[in-house]
Amino acid sequence: MTTGLSFEGWMKAIQAEMESALLRYLPPAAQAPARLHEAMQYAVLDGGKRVRPLLVHAAGALFDADAVELARAAAAIEMIHAYSLVHDDMPCMDDDALRRGKPTVHVKYDEACALLVGDALQAQAFEVLAQGGLEPARQLAMVRLLARASGSLGMCGGQAIDLASVGLSLSLAELEQMHQLKTGALLRASVLLGALAGKSLSEQEMTALDAYALAVGLAFQVVDDVLDATADSATLGKTAGKDAADNKPTYVSILGLQQSQALAEKLRTDAHRALEQFGDKARRLRELADLIVQRKA
Amino acid sequence: MTTGLSFEGWMKAIQAEMESALLRYLPPAAQAPARLHEAMQYAVLDGGKRVRPLLVHAAGALFDADAVELARAAAAIEMIHAYSLVHDDMPCMDDDALRRGKPTVHVKYDEACALLVGDALQAQAFEVLAQGGLEPARQLAMVRLLARASGSLGMCGGQAIDLASVGLSLSLAELEQMHQLKTGALLRASVLLGALAGKSLSEQEMTALDAYALAVGLAFQVVDDVLDATADSATLGKTAGKDAADNKPTYVSILGLQQSQALAEKLRTDAHRALEQFGDKARRLRELADLIVQRKA
Repeated sequence: MTTGLSFEGWMKAIQAEMESALLRYLPPAAQAPARLHEAMQYAVLDGGKRVRPLLVHAAGALFDADAVELARAAAAIEMIHAYSLVHDDMPCMDDDALRRGKPTVHVKYDEACALLVGDALQAQAFEVLAQGGLEPARQLAMVRLLARASGSLGMCGGQAIDLASVGLSLSLAELEQMHQLKTGALLRASVLLGALAGKSLSEQEMTALDAYALAVGLAFQVVDDVLDATADSATLGKTAGKDAADNKPTYVSILGLQQSQALAEKLRTDAHRALEQFGDKARRLRELADLIVQRKA
Repeated sequence: MTTGLSFEGWMKAIQAEMESALLRYLPPAAQAPARLHEAMQYAVLDGGKRVRPLLVHAAGALFDADAVELARAAAAIEMIHAYSLVHDDMPCMDDDALRRGKPTVHVKYDEACALLVGDALQAQAFEVLAQGGLEPARQLAMVRLLARASGSLGMCGGQAIDLASVGLSLSLAELEQMHQLKTGALLRASVLLGALAGKSLSEQEMTALDAYALAVGLAFQVVDDVLDATADSATLGKTAGKDAADNKPTYVSILGLQQSQALAEKLRTDAHRALEQFGDKARRLRELADLIVQRKA
């Protein structure tokens, strides 16, 4: 149904569908404990560009994956992403008051609530994914993949390295390794879960999708750093210039602005090249790589 | 091998085995990010009575479950329990400096580290459980069960109700509901995961184990409240008298000391009765109910 749409139309359709999928896969806000459930919805709904769900659906298109199973995997990943933002924004971490143009969860509610919202969203993500209707062995592999991408060898590990690196001068390789864990691991999981919702992957397919995810993940971060250095808070929906103010190493601080932009462009080419074997079915993944590099916020 | 042991000997054997299982299922402390991995081990190893792992193994004995799969399920549950303690101890929650006789994670490391330790332990729990070697559909059911018990309709939900109830006067029913979520859900998951590691459960078996877990879970909390009111910090390995100081509703504050002790005894009888259909195979579960009611710390 969505194959005939323009990229813009396809994105809008997925984003709208995600909103209702997330609502469906979260506990109702009126159910006890109501304040926690309301805050979980606040943290997840009406948020962001849904880059990870877009990657899930785009990768699912490679193998004509079932739309309901894609929505489920995308919802699980988005809950992990949302919980990481809630915890990341807390005073003991980045201490940010603004996220997606709204007060952060600990500001709107309180710190204890934000802590529990994040914890409960992580559990909810695994519950939702484990409820999937795919062949059990494959569904279980998807749970393992999401858990690995979220934990100390994935996203949490990247955040730990990020925290430890404040005020240090990282090499380009160290910066890349940090981002590969902090944001890259979950972006990779998005691509792989989307593809796995379609079928079990051959080693060759896995390698190609890994290369795509790696390039797109790094491009995402390079562009994030460029935007943090060049855009304003209103456009970004979060506090701009914060990395420099926090003395955090970024691509811009290491490579400068022009070389960072050139790197993003090179990564876009890498991403396209990795998709060659998939032909026209990879159209949405290609378009997403373009979007990630060309976005303005 | 462990059936011939005294209860004391059986407990010691499980506790010792858990220590090595947990070490096996956690990332090595030397692996990057090393500080995070070291702190994860600090939070999990050398800790507590391992009540949940004991319940897993005792329930597994009902159906002669595989020892390796029991250790895996027990490790996953213990990681969830340990993460909840780490987050619970943080300044924005209970603000506790002492846990199991050692400085809490945010005191020993820092708050950001404690936050990430908890987050990463939760992910690790699901990864470990999803790596199990049981029939995939059953393994997946175990993941769902653990996720449900950990999230907003289980442990996290109970903590949210607990936080919201500070300074309020709860009814006995409200207090029970809070504890059924806060600690009962994970104790129930321990019993059910142990049994499920042995085989798929009939409805009748599930009902009986649910009744056992409910009684034991409440007994556990009643005794906790009694000990908090009567024991000293050195014996407990945590700050005693804290509930009263924090103006938290407890069984002792609602029922008084004597009636609380009588309730614990009644719950022990309930737990025994629920196990009747399992005969001698339920010996360890019976002994654990006794231990939970009769413990001094």
